[in-house]
Amino acid sequence: MQRYFVDTTYAAAQEAGLRLSGEDYHHSIHVMRMTVGGQCYLAFLDQVVIIAEITSISDDFVSLKEISIETQDKELPIEVTIASGFPKGDKYELIVQKATELGAYHFIGFPGKTSVVKWDQKKLNKKNERLTKIAKEAAEQSHRQHQPTITLVSQFNELVSQLAEYDQVLVAYEEAAKSGEAAQLVQTLTAMEPGQKLLVIFGPEGGLTPAEVETFENLGGKRCGLGPRILRTETAPFYVLSAISYHYELLN
Amino acid sequence: MQRYFVDTTYAAAQEAGLRLSGEDYHHSIHVMRMTVGGQCYLAFLDQVVIIAEITSISDDFVSLKEISIETQDKELPIEVTIASGFPKGDKYELIVQKATELGAYHFIGFPGKTSVVKWDQKKLNKKNERLTKIAKEAAEQSHRQHQPTITLVSQFNELVSQLAEYDQVLVAYEEAAKSGEAAQLVQTLTAMEPGQKLLVIFGPEGGLTPAEVETFENLGGKRCGLGPRILRTETAPFYVLSAISYHYELLN
Repeated sequence: MQRYFVDTTYAAAQEAGLRLSGEDYHHSIHVMRMTVGGQCYLAFLDQVVIIAEITSISDDFVSLKEISIETQDKELPIEVTIASGFPKGDKYELIVQKATELGAYHFIGFPGKTSVVKWDQKKLNKKNERLTKIAKEAAEQSHRQHQPTITLVSQFNELVSQLAEYDQVLVAYEEAAKSGEAAQLVQTLTAMEPGQKLLVIFGPEGGLTPAEVETFENLGGKRCGLGPRILRTETAPFYVLSAISYHYELLN
Repeated sequence: MQRYFVDTTYAAAQEAGLRLSGEDYHHSIHVMRMTVGGQCYLAFLDQVVIIAEITSISDDFVSLKEISIETQDKELPIEVTIASGFPKGDKYELIVQKATELGAYHFIGFPGKTSVVKWDQKKLNKKNERLTKIAKEAAEQSHRQHQPTITLVSQFNELVSQLAEYDQVLVAYEEAAKSGEAAQLVQTLTAMEPGQKLLVIFGPEGGLTPAEVETFENLGGKRCGLGPRILRTETAPFYVLSAISYHYELLN
């Protein structure tokens, strides 16, 4: 069943009446060809998700009524933010799409020392718009309750200044893999409580520099190995999110 | 350091002299611009990996001498085969590249009931060639000791007839995720011994049909959930391989 993220809380939507408008209106009527009586999921800002049924269709919007509330929890028990050094080409699109399916809560992109691409503010805005759309579609497709948000910073220090907001910070560092570091991810996940915030930082293709890693470490970040194979910058977040799901959602 | 898979065993290469020829010759000299004294990894068919140094360069091949043997084990303790229903577009390329980084040992592609693409033998051969090349490059880049192999079958039954060769068979089934099945992957991994063979079967975009799942179940395959979020056909193998690495390489 199709899923739509709507820009209000559940309470506000109940008050105003359940509606789909804009692109979601277009998608439901012209792409999905839904008609009166058809059902879809509506996911609200406060992560309430309901099954709703179309009661009428106007030229601008679809009206719906609530059928039932979704009870299964689709979100990871901890909030995981994936910070990536700007990668080349359309790799960031792949990271956001797949990591959204795998449960990422928030994305931060930053210019790493070895990032080849240089994005000015105009490019950052355009990229953010595109990535937000990809996150929305992937969240709908994977039946998420939360639509991941995207922050692209233009300075490395903007990332650094946010580290204090997290309960735990991990730094995926290729040298940790090479030296066989295996314990940190397990230790961190074992120590965290539901609702806490984890930031995992990944370098661009060229990796993080020792100075960047030191900056993160001085603020409490811990180097973390992801097994003995060297993962590309876009693959490493998939590993971390899958391991987090396995740890909390399947093992426990 | 660059890594090359060579088509002989370690013993045979010692006898014949260490060499790079063909595409690897071209890559080392013209792409990597290596010169006498430069070092690279050589990975042999029997999974021995050495660090070797270039001693001379001719018009056709590079001669090398052994410097040291790689001791860290880069392979998952169990042999994981990823079977995928033929997906659309270039998704199979993505699956092979990323799943190779994540440790897959072997790939089987098969025509699922809901597969949209129809590949004849000529197309299968061409696709196999392309996927083999992608697996080789990804195995080199991720420092694998084994180059994953590719088998594309033209009949569903060719996959079915191979199930008996595996110690365990898991079937990733979207309905298992929806019903909250959480225990099977953990149970299977906990039961397996090093060196055993695991086959994990994934449907194409449209999923496996109930009849296909029943066929696998009748031969001992077990339905397996991968957390509460619905993963795309190309994302689900990344989850399974990351979970396997986490289970054996980080947790234990």
